[in-house]
Amino acid sequence: MTHAPIDPVALTAALIRCPSVTPVEGGALELLARVLGEAGFACTRVDRNGVPNLFARWGAKGARSFGFNGHTDVVPVGDVAAWSRDPFGAEIAEGQIWGRGASDMKSGVAAFVAAAVDFVRETPPEGAVILTITGDEEGPGRDGTRALLDWMAAEGEAMSVCLVGEPTCPERMGEMMKIGRRGSMTFYIEAEGVQGHAAYPHRAKNPLHALTRLLGEMTAAPLDQGTAHFEPSSLQITTIDCANPANNVIPARATATVNIRFNDAHSGAGLVAWGEGLAARIEAETGVRLTLRSEISGESFVTPPGAFVALVAAAVEAETGLRPELSTTGGTSDARFVKDHCPVLEFGLVGQTMHKVDERVEIAHIHQLKAIYARALRAFFA
Amino acid sequence: MTHAPIDPVALTAALIRCPSVTPVEGGALELLARVLGEAGFACTRVDRNGVPNLFARWGAKGARSFGFNGHTDVVPVGDVAAWSRDPFGAEIAEGQIWGRGASDMKSGVAAFVAAAVDFVRETPPEGAVILTITGDEEGPGRDGTRALLDWMAAEGEAMSVCLVGEPTCPERMGEMMKIGRRGSMTFYIEAEGVQGHAAYPHRAKNPLHALTRLLGEMTAAPLDQGTAHFEPSSLQITTIDCANPANNVIPARATATVNIRFNDAHSGAGLVAWGEGLAARIEAETGVRLTLRSEISGESFVTPPGAFVALVAAAVEAETGLRPELSTTGGTSDARFVKDHCPVLEFGLVGQTMHKVDERVEIAHIHQLKAIYARALRAFFA
Ligand SMILES: [Zn+2]
Ligand SMILES: [Zn+2]
Repeated sequence: MTHAPIDPVALTAALIRCPSVTPVEGGALELLARVLGEAGFACTRVDRNGVPNLFARWGAKGARSFGFNGHTDVVPVGDVAAWSRDPFGAEIAEGQIWGRGASDMKSGVAAFVAAAVDFVRETPPEGAVILTITGDEEGPGRDGTRALLDWMAAEGEAMSVCLVGEPTCPERMGEMMKIGRRGSMTFYIEAEGVQGHAAYPHRAKNPLHALTRLLGEMTAAPLDQGTAHFEPSSLQITTIDCANPANNVIPARATATVNIRFNDAHSGAGLVAWGEGLAARIEAETGVRLTLRSEISGESFVTPPGAFVALVAAAVEAETGLRPELSTTGGTSDARFVKDHCPVLEFGLVGQTMHKVDERVEIAHIHQLKAIYARALRAFFA
Repeated sequence: MTHAPIDPVALTAALIRCPSVTPVEGGALELLARVLGEAGFACTRVDRNGVPNLFARWGAKGARSFGFNGHTDVVPVGDVAAWSRDPFGAEIAEGQIWGRGASDMKSGVAAFVAAAVDFVRETPPEGAVILTITGDEEGPGRDGTRALLDWMAAEGEAMSVCLVGEPTCPERMGEMMKIGRRGSMTFYIEAEGVQGHAAYPHRAKNPLHALTRLLGEMTAAPLDQGTAHFEPSSLQITTIDCANPANNVIPARATATVNIRFNDAHSGAGLVAWGEGLAARIEAETGVRLTLRSEISGESFVTPPGAFVALVAAAVEAETGLRPELSTTGGTSDARFVKDHCPVLEFGLVGQTMHKVDERVEIAHIHQLKAIYARALRAFFA
C-alpha cells in the first residue's frame, strides 16, 4: 500500500485550529498521535502534573536515532480585536497561513511530523526516528520536555542527535540556525542600611548609595568581548525599588534585580561568586548589608561545528540557497534541557510574528522546512 | 510699681498646657500677648491664611532693635500610650519639665519673653525689643515667620539683629550656636528609555543603566571639602523606583530623587546647572531621556563671626562656662527667612528629645537660657 505524502500546510492548519494555549492540550497532541500511529510510530503520552506530552518512536528502542523536539502549546492571543483574522482560524491569504502558533511553532511540528512519516514510509531506515513533543514550552516548562527526557532516561529511550523545530530565522528563510544558547541568571539584590534624616547623613547608612555603587560596578565594563561561538554576555538591571516618599529621609532598604545572559566564558556559579564578591567588598566599605539571592535558569551550551552541524547546514543550503549562520543568540528554548542528553541544534522558520498579533508564516516556507528536515533524515541514515 | 521677675519655667508650663499642634493656636499666642501687653509691648496678631502669628514691639518703631524669633506650634504627640507622662501636662519630675514642646521650643519662647519683659521693666533701653512668634514653623511654614516679615516690611518695622530660640545644643547646654544653615535642594529625576526583552538589549535602551550612571557620577566624589564656616555639602539619593516585576524585561521608565544639603561653596542654581549638565551628557551617550525637575527649598547662609556673634557667644560662655561652637549643621529653621532682613543667629536648649516621645528639658537649663538672653539684651544696648 502506498500513501500520499503528508501536506505540512494542511497539518499546520489542523493544529492551529486546536486552541492549545498553555497548558491546554486542545486536541493537538491527540491529532499528532493519530497521524504518527497510522504510520507505525509507537506513541506514548508522557503527561506530568497535568502537562500533556507526546513521545513517538519509529524503529527499535536503543537503535541509533534521529530525534526532533517541538511544542504544540501557544501563548495567549492577547487582544483578539487587534487581529486581522481569527487567531484559531488558520486562514490562508496573501500566500501565508494566519493564526496563533503559525510561526511558533505548529508549522515546525507539522513539518517534522510530515517529513518523518513520509521518510519512514518511503525509505524505512536502519535505526529509529524519535519525536518529542510537549504541551508546555511557553509556560513554566517544568513538566514539558523535561518530563519527556526524564521518562526516556527511565525507560532506556534515547536520541542520538536532536533537531528542535523552533523558528530561528530573523528575516529570511534559511539564514540562521542555532547551535547553542547563552545561559541566563538573575540576582535579586537587597540593600539594608540605616534610616535617617537627609540633613544628618553621618547618622544613617544610605542603602541606595551602596546599591548604586554595586550596580555601577556591575555595569561599568562588559563581562567579556564574546567567544568563538557567542556574542558578548549581557547584563541588564531590570528594576530598582525603594518607594520612599520623603525627600528628607534616607531610607532603610532598597532592592534591585539584575538579569545576565552569559556565554561560555562564564558559568552560573562563577557569576554568582563574582556578584557576591563585589557585594561583600562594598558591604565592608559602606556598612550597608548587601544580600544577593541568585537564580540560575540555565547554563550556556553549544554544539560545536562538526558532523551534525554540517549535515543540517547542508540540508538548509540545498533547499534555500543560503548557508545558515551558526548562531547562539536569543532567549532560551527547550534545547537547554535536551543538551544534557545528546547533541542538539535548532532550525526552523522566520520568527518575526511569533508571540505577536497577526502571527503568520509563508506557506512556501513550510514546504521548504519539511524538505530540509527530510534531507537531514536521509543524510543522517545514508 | 515694681514687678516680680517672670518665671520662665512657669511660663513654659503654661505654654505646654496649650495644645497648639500645628496649625492650632491653642491659646499659646493669646497667653503671650497678654503677658507682653501688660509689660508695655505693642502686640499685633499677624495671622495669614488661618495661621496665627504674633508681632510684639517695646520701644519706638524704627529704633535700633534687638529681635527674637520663635514658634509656639508643636509636632503631634504621636503614640500617646508610649509617653510616660501627659504630653500636655507640663509635669515637673526628675528636675525636668515634660511635654510636647518642652524642648522645641516653648521653653525657648518662654525664656526670651521672660528675659525681654524683665529687661524693659528693669532697665528700659534706648531702642526697641521686637518679638516675632509664629504658630507655623513645624508645618508648611508659608504663612508663619514669612508672613510676619512680609507684614513688617510693609509696615516699616525692622529688627536690627535677630536671635532665634530653637534648640541648638546636641548634648550639653551651651556647647553650640548656629550662625547659618546649609541650603537644601531636590532633584526629581525621570529616565525614559525603550522597553525590550532582556535577551535582546541592543533593541532596547535601559533607563536604569543611564540612571545608575547619573547617580553614580553624582555620588562618586564629595561636592566639596567644607568651607570656613560649613561642613562638606552632602548629597543623598532618597529613592529609586521602577516597579518592573518581570526579570526578562528591560523597563521603559524609572525615577529617582536626590536631596542635597549644600554649603556656601554652592548655590541652588549652580547645582541645578551641574545636575542638568551631567544628565545631558549621559542622555547624549545612552539615548535615554533624562529629565530633571529641581526644587530649591533654601540657599545656604551664614552670619559671619563679628560683633553680634561675639556678643551672643560671650553671653553663653558667661552663663554656662562653655565657649559655643559656631555651627552651620542640621536641618532648616525659620532663620532662613530672617536672614534676608537682618543678621540672624540661633541659640537655645539641648534638643535631644525634640519631636520624640517623652520630650522634656532640664529646668535649670530654662533658667540659664533666660539669663543668657538677658545678658545678650544688656550687652546689645550697653
Ligand atoms: Zn516556541
Ligand atoms: Zn522648632
